[in-house]
Amino acid sequence: MSLLSAMPAPFSPPADLLDRVRMSRRPLLIAHISPDGDAIGSLLAAGSILYHLGKDPVLACQDTPPASLSFLPRYDRITNQVHEEVDLVIALDSSDRERLGNIYDQGRIRSLPLVVIDHHITNTLFGDCNWIEPRACATAEMIFDLAQALEVTIDTQIATCLLTGIVTDTRGFRTSSTTPRVMRIVSALMETGADLPTIADLALEARSTELIQLWGRAIATITVHQGVISADNTLEMRVDLGRLIRAEGLASFLLGSRDAQIAVVFTELPDQRIECSFRAQPGQDVAAVAYAFGGGGHALAAGCTVDGPLEAARERVLARLYESLRR
Amino acid sequence: MSLLSAMPAPFSPPADLLDRVRMSRRPLLIAHISPDGDAIGSLLAAGSILYHLGKDPVLACQDTPPASLSFLPRYDRITNQVHEEVDLVIALDSSDRERLGNIYDQGRIRSLPLVVIDHHITNTLFGDCNWIEPRACATAEMIFDLAQALEVTIDTQIATCLLTGIVTDTRGFRTSSTTPRVMRIVSALMETGADLPTIADLALEARSTELIQLWGRAIATITVHQGVISADNTLEMRVDLGRLIRAEGLASFLLGSRDAQIAVVFTELPDQRIECSFRAQPGQDVAAVAYAFGGGGHALAAGCTVDGPLEAARERVLARLYESLRR
Repeated sequence: MSLLSAMPAPFSPPADLLDRVRMSRRPLLIAHISPDGDAIGSLLAAGSILYHLGKDPVLACQDTPPASLSFLPRYDRITNQVHEEVDLVIALDSSDRERLGNIYDQGRIRSLPLVVIDHHITNTLFGDCNWIEPRACATAEMIFDLAQALEVTIDTQIATCLLTGIVTDTRGFRTSSTTPRVMRIVSALMETGADLPTIADLALEARSTELIQLWGRAIATITVHQGVISADNTLEMRVDLGRLIRAEGLASFLLGSRDAQIAVVFTELPDQRIECSFRAQPGQDVAAVAYAFGGGGHALAAGCTVDGPLEAARERVLARLYESLRR
Repeated sequence: MSLLSAMPAPFSPPADLLDRVRMSRRPLLIAHISPDGDAIGSLLAAGSILYHLGKDPVLACQDTPPASLSFLPRYDRITNQVHEEVDLVIALDSSDRERLGNIYDQGRIRSLPLVVIDHHITNTLFGDCNWIEPRACATAEMIFDLAQALEVTIDTQIATCLLTGIVTDTRGFRTSSTTPRVMRIVSALMETGADLPTIADLALEARSTELIQLWGRAIATITVHQGVISADNTLEMRVDLGRLIRAEGLASFLLGSRDAQIAVVFTELPDQRIECSFRAQPGQDVAAVAYAFGGGGHALAAGCTVDGPLEAARERVLARLYESLRR
């Protein structure tokens, strides 16, 4: 087995996209609302690539990026107000126009040509030029290929942003979209000096102390029955925890139980309805259960919101989960 | 940036080692006591490589391998009794002779030539032929190179074992030993069909429900002060949790708090002494604190055991941790 075996072909940006980017003097790059590591990593990396090409890009996002990403170079340059006279709009990691938020409503932005770069299979092709690669593990993987197509050398700063996008969207290389090619790209990014262990720690492991406390309280309620592990996240648990609502990441963590094929967390919402978050081992299908209660998702990760009170909701939903189990 | 840039040179097994392996008809491979993913992954991969060379290897380990590794091909072939007439001993991932356990005391095994393959810098060179590569992230990385040197094609089974060794010893690519070369090897192993997401889930995320419950109880005790997050794991918390003693992985998890530079878990042992497990962010040095109490470890991960009762121990140790903090 050679380590130098041929790489699968890169994702290629359309010629039209490259032309539009090359012609622009001051492009506006927009990351989606409630931005995650891929949205911000792709935004900052694409911004640096365009800067290296002699452009004067403006980087925008309606919402403040997560503090956990503040280690990224040029994080402070992201704005939520566009005053500059821009000449092209590039939407990153956004599956539809609404995901651009109020940035897209400012000034004459709506009248400018719109380029869309995204890896979501659900993309609505809302641009004048759409480059969509559903097989890419992250938009950052596409920006890696964009840099090659534009012949921009990837430096440590760009590599750090791209690696952050890849690490977060693959949850630390845990998704099925993590191909051998992705790991080759990761290796190349590390060779430029990007620090994978630090990025993974900062972007994936960082949680507020309050969230850790909420996990502890919810774990105190776990029950395991017929391969389903279940935990409650009640209003009462959160009275001293500020605006915290969801026990982010807890369902995935509980699925790590050797006794569990399915994990579910029941979150009591302020309006007394109950949000159900499902995670499942390969072979199971929690999307079907979520659909039955008016929710949605994928076979291994889905959710729905049902009427309370908690006890009754838990009983109804667990009954459906037990029925759905495949052994 | 080319994805096909030259690879750093592989680690090369000594010619003497290759000769001894080629001459052997029935080698005995031993993984260390209390085996982890790298010990078992390297054992099974090396066994398959030797089998492909026409040998009849015996795979041994004093202790039963963790059930979380039972998905590995040929896991059931690992024995703790050696009845066969073997002609060579190969110690894997073991830094000294004691780590071979009672396997090394059976029959005439002690009189046979001993080959040592290991990546621990602390290896005592206890073999007749020692191949030690402290820069390797795992012994499995060395076994990858051994396969190349012996011209054995790495199939999906071998790749699955090697990838398990690498994923576990790097804690999912989180250690500083995770080099660009490691990611190239990971890519090559995935190309043979080894399933990284499944391996990571099974080998890293799987926990007993009891351990999850213990985490929840310990998290209920957390305090954060001056950048130190602290949790207790008491005898009382464990009365209904069988033989469980340590809250494995909890200190690393707590260090994920955005408020924490140092994490410590205090475990009340059955003899009433208190085990202290420290984890720290880069820039800190918890080894110095551990040494001060007669323990040891690395700057970012260390431990010690001190006299109880818990309250007094916690107070003494926390005072030292606060003093040690670097801002």
